[in-house]
Amino acid sequence: MAKLIYEGKAKQMWSTDDPEVLRVVYMDQATALNGKKKDQINGKGIVNNEISSLIFQYLMKKGIETHFIKKLSETEELVKKVEIVPLEMVTRNVSAGHFATRFGVEEGICFEKPVEETYYKSDELDDPFINESQSLALKIVKKEELDAMWDISRRVNEILTALFDRMGLILVDFKLEFGRLSNGRIVLADEFSPDNCRLWDKQTRAHMDKDVYRRDLGDLTSVYEEVLRRLKNELSKEEA
Amino acid sequence: MAKLIYEGKAKQMWSTDDPEVLRVVYMDQATALNGKKKDQINGKGIVNNEISSLIFQYLMKKGIETHFIKKLSETEELVKKVEIVPLEMVTRNVSAGHFATRFGVEEGICFEKPVEETYYKSDELDDPFINESQSLALKIVKKEELDAMWDISRRVNEILTALFDRMGLILVDFKLEFGRLSNGRIVLADEFSPDNCRLWDKQTRAHMDKDVYRRDLGDLTSVYEEVLRRLKNELSKEEA
Ligand SMILES: Nc1ncnc2c1ncn2[C@@H]1O[C@H](COP(=O)(O)OP(=O)(O)OP(=O)(O)O)[C@@H](O)[C@H]1O
Ligand SMILES: Nc1ncnc2c1ncn2[C@@H]1O[C@H](COP(=O)(O)OP(=O)(O)OP(=O)(O)O)[C@@H](O)[C@H]1O
Ligand SMILES: [Mg+2]
Ligand SMILES: [Mg+2]
Repeated sequence: MAKLIYEGKAKQMWSTDDPEVLRVVYMDQATALNGKKKDQINGKGIVNNEISSLIFQYLMKKGIETHFIKKLSETEELVKKVEIVPLEMVTRNVSAGHFATRFGVEEGICFEKPVEETYYKSDELDDPFINESQSLALKIVKKEELDAMWDISRRVNEILTALFDRMGLILVDFKLEFGRLSNGRIVLADEFSPDNCRLWDKQTRAHMDKDVYRRDLGDLTSVYEEVLRRLKNELSKEEA
Repeated sequence: MAKLIYEGKAKQMWSTDDPEVLRVVYMDQATALNGKKKDQINGKGIVNNEISSLIFQYLMKKGIETHFIKKLSETEELVKKVEIVPLEMVTRNVSAGHFATRFGVEEGICFEKPVEETYYKSDELDDPFINESQSLALKIVKKEELDAMWDISRRVNEILTALFDRMGLILVDFKLEFGRLSNGRIVLADEFSPDNCRLWDKQTRAHMDKDVYRRDLGDLTSVYEEVLRRLKNELSKEEA
């Protein structure tokens, strides 16, 4: 019998007959401000599942190891069960959001080298910003694992910056999560969707990501659907 | 004519006839909570000036380059004027204070490797915690400078952990500031006193630092004077 292992803010994780496999259900829910703002958003689960599945498959084709097995249905995926490393790995190509407010700079500064940040995934502690030395001292992660995670993050950044660019979008920043397979190997896990990245339209600079929800800029699902439309269009060109 | 160049929370910086030299005046003032708590503490200026002068001279004898020129009077020093790198460089040997609250761990955990943190010195931004990648992207410091600063911090930690140990004290953590000389060279600047480190008595675990003020544990000046007494005692033994 499938058991609900975890219900997060955007997804449910269900067990399957295979102890090494989980079923992910994408939900119609958006949250911001660490859960203080929360709403039901019709259609968000479907579009995020589709975007994330396409992105993970694209990354795997480019040689990135991930937890992804396959898309099961409109809102479901099968993934390899991992032990999540409790660090949010953030890469920033352009200043925005927290970075801009924290350091008192405007949004839109292009960094010569991407900025890399980690946040300790802990609801009680409110996901504090953490540095490498602290996360090693707290034994949250091993140095080799962290190096592997940044190595993958950098390759993901290169691959996706180029892909989104061809879709007329700037990949401003994104958050990845990684996990350990049962053999200890580090793979990319969780999801990649406009929920955990910032995408700006190259022409209009319009927000094409969760900032539409955070900043009440319009209808989230239709914005995500536009990202999906461009993604499918670009991927079909590349396959041809 | 000497001009007051900067009045901080604990010291005044005065110009001198030599444009490359400043006169530091240690004041009888303590602050905590980024200035929200503030009190006049009689005798603190004298004892901090004496402790910091002795520590800087000791470090210089051990080969550390600093801004220190000489002690001028009970409350005054002459130092080389530097362009302060606006980063507080924190080294932690044992968990305490902010680290413990931020990550929800108890005080007193000894780290296998010291934890290293930087804070961006900015009153408007409330001295935010910053990582290496962010401080490079914001062009606050060059990579080579940061490496030099950590290299000096590590040597200071080794030298002073051993010195305080012989004084019956545990060097729990400390904050250093660095500056650029007119030729660009990075040297240790500011001060080293119980105002910017944590010292615990090895036997009793009593706080022998500014936590006495932060946590209202007793008379700050007499605690600092006990640190000074042990320091003079130890240094006179080493000179003999
Ligand atoms: N392959 C995997 N195996 C096990 N857990 C996973 C896997 N991929 C993702 N997860 C975890 O499953 C959960 C997905 O749910 P969701 O994204 O809604 O969580 P969340 O609300 O963002 O909360 P949090 O990430 O803080 O737990 C996350 O905790 C994520 O770390
Ligand atoms: N050799 C030096 N040349 C120039 N400035 C220095 C030198 N050494 C220290 N300083 C600076 O002089 C000031 C000393 O004053 P004080 O320690 O009271 O400042 P503060 O209240 O801690 O505030 P802040 O460090 O945030 O400016 C600090 O700003 C310090 O960075
Ligand atoms: Mg999540
Ligand atoms: Mg100071």
